[in-house]
Amino acid sequence: MDRPIGVIDSGVGGLTVALELMRQLPREKLIYLGDTKRCPYGPRTKEEVQQFTWEMVNFLLEKEIKLLVIACNTATAYTIDDLKDKLNIPVIGVINPGARAAIKATNNQEIGIIGTEGTVKSGAYPEALKRINPELHVQALACPLFVPLVERGVFSGEEARTVVQTTLEPLVEDNVMDTLILGCTHYPLLKPLIQDVVGNKVAVISSSEETARETSAILEIKHLHNKSGVQQVHEIYSTGDMELFNCIATKIFQSGIQQQFKIKRAVIEKD
Amino acid sequence: MDRPIGVIDSGVGGLTVALELMRQLPREKLIYLGDTKRCPYGPRTKEEVQQFTWEMVNFLLEKEIKLLVIACNTATAYTIDDLKDKLNIPVIGVINPGARAAIKATNNQEIGIIGTEGTVKSGAYPEALKRINPELHVQALACPLFVPLVERGVFSGEEARTVVQTTLEPLVEDNVMDTLILGCTHYPLLKPLIQDVVGNKVAVISSSEETARETSAILEIKHLHNKSGVQQVHEIYSTGDMELFNCIATKIFQSGIQQQFKIKRAVIEKD
Repeated sequence: MDRPIGVIDSGVGGLTVALELMRQLPREKLIYLGDTKRCPYGPRTKEEVQQFTWEMVNFLLEKEIKLLVIACNTATAYTIDDLKDKLNIPVIGVINPGARAAIKATNNQEIGIIGTEGTVKSGAYPEALKRINPELHVQALACPLFVPLVERGVFSGEEARTVVQTTLEPLVEDNVMDTLILGCTHYPLLKPLIQDVVGNKVAVISSSEETARETSAILEIKHLHNKSGVQQVHEIYSTGDMELFNCIATKIFQSGIQQQFKIKRAVIEKD
Repeated sequence: MDRPIGVIDSGVGGLTVALELMRQLPREKLIYLGDTKRCPYGPRTKEEVQQFTWEMVNFLLEKEIKLLVIACNTATAYTIDDLKDKLNIPVIGVINPGARAAIKATNNQEIGIIGTEGTVKSGAYPEALKRINPELHVQALACPLFVPLVERGVFSGEEARTVVQTTLEPLVEDNVMDTLILGCTHYPLLKPLIQDVVGNKVAVISSSEETARETSAILEIKHLHNKSGVQQVHEIYSTGDMELFNCIATKIFQSGIQQQFKIKRAVIEKD
């Protein structure tokens, strides 16, 4: 089955999911679409997010994707049920894989979650966690300064450290969680800093890595793995400013894989 | 969907998978069957393993399980395709979940696998790994002394340390792997010792934990999660000696969960 896997996100954060898919599934071809022009989705209405997400999905369906990954927490929260209902290909969001990995990792049932204000307000992670284990204690913290950092390409250095340290202070002071979910696809780019601030005793769960791992499981169950040995050239699309997108995508991919990709502009809005 | 999850193994090793299922899916009821009377399966013929496995499966099907976990490497290698083909419930083995977790964990593409002689000879793990990523380097080591230790209930102490240290010497001396798969469901009981011997820089992957995590994902995809909040009493069956089985099961479960279970004798052989 050599049809591509489709990945959508409101912007650049989902590239961390794409990177993990490339790393964990090197035989698969990806088509990524980041709606950078209308990013961020966080402050938008549910209806807007649903409309934009469907526009992205339709763009990818024309490219005959065999599976869809929603690499964006806001879009997952607002659209996954509808997409699962209406599409005849498997649909994977970022929330449940992260929740399952945290349940596996925790020993003391104390789980922390960091995400955007929208994700924290939605309560999607606590809900996903407690649906599986009602006994868990869950503490969520919004980190509104992390996404702007990453979108500027700042993943390390003094500024990043200060922002991460100051933001995470409440969780660190509390000192009860043994597991922390990175509930935003931008955050894995700050993972070394975050791990350093929370300390080595806390398991830091990247929902990007976990989503890629679960995609691999679903490809197997549905017999969708690509069996040909051909080296793939991934297609990466952005709806907005190409220069910054190009720069961040190259920065993310260069660190982790030796695969080829082409970055192009996409127009997906309906007239 | 409050029907139980069925778990089969040749003996006590699969109890580590059961423990992880209880820990990661506390709302689910388990029915476990260990064929201790005819354990180990490793040296038996393919036909014998297939016949014994089907006898176990038929015992559990009568109990209306909604999903089957084959918590035994040998049985997975010899029967999973046939079971997937013929049963109309999801079937999960231990090999692919462990392989996927290792692919996620490795940074240098150097993966070690330890298992019984049968599992190592079967080549099932290298095959599962390379099907997903042909570039991986895989080194497998048989550890024939580990299962007898665990079956005697020896999980720590000087004797266990000496056996683990001596057996793993070739992998440790080689010093290239950054990820080690515990390719036998008995080995998670020796995990603290194994981690200590290989060092903290090596990610030690328990196929038991990973299998439970993937079971959770599949329950979700198939809409099979138990949504009732009722506390479950698990049923644990053994075909052989009840005293030792009882003792090991209690030892394994007491360390990790606060759930109720009943241990009973089962007769599954056809006349």
